[in-house]
Amino acid sequence: MIGVRTTPTAGVYYRRMPDTLSETTALLRRTPAAVDALVRGLPASWTERNEGDSTWSVFDIVGHLIHGDRADWMSRTRTILEFGESKPFEPFDRSGHQREVAGKSMEDLLSAFARVRAEKLAELEALQLRTEDLDRRGRHPVFGVVTLGQLLSTWAAHDLTHLHQISRVMAYQYRDAVGPWIKYLGVLHCQGHGG
Amino acid sequence: MIGVRTTPTAGVYYRRMPDTLSETTALLRRTPAAVDALVRGLPASWTERNEGDSTWSVFDIVGHLIHGDRADWMSRTRTILEFGESKPFEPFDRSGHQREVAGKSMEDLLSAFARVRAEKLAELEALQLRTEDLDRRGRHPVFGVVTLGQLLSTWAAHDLTHLHQISRVMAYQYRDAVGPWIKYLGVLHCQGHGG
Repeated sequence: MIGVRTTPTAGVYYRRMPDTLSETTALLRRTPAAVDALVRGLPASWTERNEGDSTWSVFDIVGHLIHGDRADWMSRTRTILEFGESKPFEPFDRSGHQREVAGKSMEDLLSAFARVRAEKLAELEALQLRTEDLDRRGRHPVFGVVTLGQLLSTWAAHDLTHLHQISRVMAYQYRDAVGPWIKYLGVLHCQGHGG
Repeated sequence: MIGVRTTPTAGVYYRRMPDTLSETTALLRRTPAAVDALVRGLPASWTERNEGDSTWSVFDIVGHLIHGDRADWMSRTRTILEFGESKPFEPFDRSGHQREVAGKSMEDLLSAFARVRAEKLAELEALQLRTEDLDRRGRHPVFGVVTLGQLLSTWAAHDLTHLHQISRVMAYQYRDAVGPWIKYLGVLHCQGHGG
């Protein structure tokens, strides 16, 4: 159970978060450590190569995750809480990660991701959202009306879409090395579906 | 650089592994910690649900990774080194994980995966393989002739195919929660490609 401090439980003060939000933050808290455990110290042949043309490497993907946390999710959360449907979200710049990665090492990015994620989750917890808040509505520039619950669920699913991409981009580097086994390796048949 | 002890470097004895093997083991060493960081302590709503019908949950997938390490990769490596093309590999039982997971908790499985992976990598290092060993040939029951290099690369790519599957199975649990954002979440458009 995840919570913020207001009522006493085993010597610590907890207010129970809505279940769906608790599931969402349980994942969001784990992603930086999972990516770090997978990637930190790996040879650059795994992390700096992409799938060809202008596709992303693992390095780019971690930059994108940082940029999303810095620019997108909590900013949109606050737009919903402050303005509701009256103010559309700022569009998200999918190339915004280029500023995040310039001059950085993979290790820098992994540390920056852990840091910004912890900051943003602390901001989220400080809002002390209740179940009914998840139904609050905002306006997406393309989709129109969305709810705060959908936005926060998408933050978690967005982590998963990029974990999916990281595993695919890494596997791509071994597409020849595996020889005939390519037939059995689902990840090497994934078309990417735009992420 | 990964190595086994034979020549002195900074007070420790190292023999340099072939580069491709070093890349492969760099990934293999990290997978259990990455899965652990992502999954340990997560609510069961993320880890015990599947994609419907007889598909696998995260729990099943970790069981399968354990079973692969216990029954498959190093056993086939030894078959190649001892018998070459003269003896086909034992077929791998894709439902063999059912024995691994029976009566276990998710936490048990994560610890078992870390343990068996460390054991199997120690066995691999003890073989002190050289670059030319990677060209040694064995016989796959379906594909026919394969090399040791292809087998070991497939071990790593198999980790990635199941990381890819883990992220997809988890995202599937949020397919409704994300509302219209499903359009942008590639992982929710992944058909699975058999893994």
